[in-house]
Amino acid sequence: MLTFYSQLHHLHHASELKDGKVSPCFEMPHRADTVLARVREVGLGPLATAPAQDSSRYARVHSARYVRFLETAWQEWSALGHQHDALPLVWPVRDLRSDIEPEHIDGKLGFYAMDAGVAITAGTWQAVRASADLALAGMQHLLDGQHSAFALCRPPGHHAAAEYMGGYCYLNNAAIAAQFCLDQGGKRVTVLDVDFHHGNGSQSIFYARADVQFVSLHGDPRRSYPYFSGHRDETGHGAGLGFNHNYPLPHGTDWTAYAEALAHACQQIRAFQPDVLVVSLGVDTFVDDPISHFRLRSEDYFPMGAAIAGLGLPTLFVMEGGYMVDEIGINAVNVLQGFAGQG
Amino acid sequence: MLTFYSQLHHLHHASELKDGKVSPCFEMPHRADTVLARVREVGLGPLATAPAQDSSRYARVHSARYVRFLETAWQEWSALGHQHDALPLVWPVRDLRSDIEPEHIDGKLGFYAMDAGVAITAGTWQAVRASADLALAGMQHLLDGQHSAFALCRPPGHHAAAEYMGGYCYLNNAAIAAQFCLDQGGKRVTVLDVDFHHGNGSQSIFYARADVQFVSLHGDPRRSYPYFSGHRDETGHGAGLGFNHNYPLPHGTDWTAYAEALAHACQQIRAFQPDVLVVSLGVDTFVDDPISHFRLRSEDYFPMGAAIAGLGLPTLFVMEGGYMVDEIGINAVNVLQGFAGQG
Repeated sequence: MLTFYSQLHHLHHASELKDGKVSPCFEMPHRADTVLARVREVGLGPLATAPAQDSSRYARVHSARYVRFLETAWQEWSALGHQHDALPLVWPVRDLRSDIEPEHIDGKLGFYAMDAGVAITAGTWQAVRASADLALAGMQHLLDGQHSAFALCRPPGHHAAAEYMGGYCYLNNAAIAAQFCLDQGGKRVTVLDVDFHHGNGSQSIFYARADVQFVSLHGDPRRSYPYFSGHRDETGHGAGLGFNHNYPLPHGTDWTAYAEALAHACQQIRAFQPDVLVVSLGVDTFVDDPISHFRLRSEDYFPMGAAIAGLGLPTLFVMEGGYMVDEIGINAVNVLQGFAGQG
Repeated sequence: MLTFYSQLHHLHHASELKDGKVSPCFEMPHRADTVLARVREVGLGPLATAPAQDSSRYARVHSARYVRFLETAWQEWSALGHQHDALPLVWPVRDLRSDIEPEHIDGKLGFYAMDAGVAITAGTWQAVRASADLALAGMQHLLDGQHSAFALCRPPGHHAAAEYMGGYCYLNNAAIAAQFCLDQGGKRVTVLDVDFHHGNGSQSIFYARADVQFVSLHGDPRRSYPYFSGHRDETGHGAGLGFNHNYPLPHGTDWTAYAEALAHACQQIRAFQPDVLVVSLGVDTFVDDPISHFRLRSEDYFPMGAAIAGLGLPTLFVMEGGYMVDEIGINAVNVLQGFAGQG
């Protein structure tokens, strides 16, 4: 399997408030380095880079003004003399207005965010667009007739919606790739999200559409981030009704229970008959993940990959979360090896 | 003028993320101490304490589950072993769901918040309810036939809505007092908000009602916190249409321009013919306030008080913001002296 990778992710290394202190984010550069090292170690396949895309490609699933914000936020922030990471401070919840974009960068940061962990640094935009370009190159690889590809994206993307960032995500790499497939003539795409956290951004982007099916297994939002999406009764809206499938699972879920839910999810995917499958590959379902609550072991990721392979679909894997840095490479690549029949 | 005061506010001294570091909030205990000292220094009048109220009184403008959350949040948080301030991390913006209360305290904190500056500490609830009780006692004083009272509330309240905290505010002291007046037989109450920041919580609570008029002068939300409310076109909803008046003013507004807007605001109040006036008294309109952008000088607060007195209404002053600690006592008490004809 071909792995698409860019060194530019190193330009994004941000801080967040953790246990009452400002600390480096769990979503750190070493995560992607670890996965890359494992790809090489097991000989998964060759590495490839990705061409830089025009940002209009990202604006197929994000609003143009949101893409422009991501591109210019650090410049506006640093023009005020700030040298520390730009973080949002207030959010347009409930009856507060999200129709008028504030002029001040402090207002813009909250206007375009859902959480307090999405810092913008000097290098964020370069890293973010390079990450999305990997997903686009991976999809192009499938459109060229290949059966699979791995986009080693960092920052991840699945929490980013049309007009807001969150959960360490800025551009929604998986959604951008899915939309690219449709724009190139694909009829139906499924996004299967196996990250521990609900892919609220992907769901939101495609919620009212019948051409992209979204299927997600994740920690029950009543007790897990992002808390405000991922319930079972979120099944789509309008033309999209019936094309959104959430499998919220309790804390402590192990492979036996997970495999059962995954089998059910795969039945939904088979019924949809997509041209292409995009897998949002998070491995924070691992038992020792520091911020998640499932109990998958490293060996469980082989049969996960095999189950996905059983769908028989051209498949793009897009890297999402996973924060137990020592194991993230093993676990992510186990999925890919399981998919390739090397498990 | 009688001043209602409680020492319990000292129990709330929280931290916030400021310039990339965790620091004590601008909204600190010393603020109220400074105002109290000035009340004594000029001999404004006697001090009084307030009886503790049943929390059902707060639930007349807040949801019962939100009041319960405020009461229990620190207990839930500290039960997880945390000793640092509880802060929200993710918010239900836009299409994210605000109908299902999460079970986990991390989810609850965001569910009931609009910003990242509302920490909950071990003493927050005691301080918050004591603050609301001051406003209630002040209103009782008016109901007993007195012409004016000053509730030296801390924490402030005007950013807190029916179901969310924000901007250093937890319970909306002014709104609780206004509702209490109506519950005791009042027909119409006006809340006049002269804090630099838009009183989004007060607006939100009374937005669809004809019995409470909300009038606010504040920094234009396009460039000032809270960014997502306070525009001129927010005029009320349903039965409340026409009873909400916002005066967003540009950065750099001085007393000349402010006085003109205040005169217009007073015309609206006269036309409404309220029984009672509640003034949300923030003095962060001061030229040297560290987080605001108007240019009022200390001597300008006398004519502000005189203009309010000109309405001839029984008036409850409720302390809100103001962060230039050295001057906050002088400026707040100048308003009260101006009202009392001592300016």
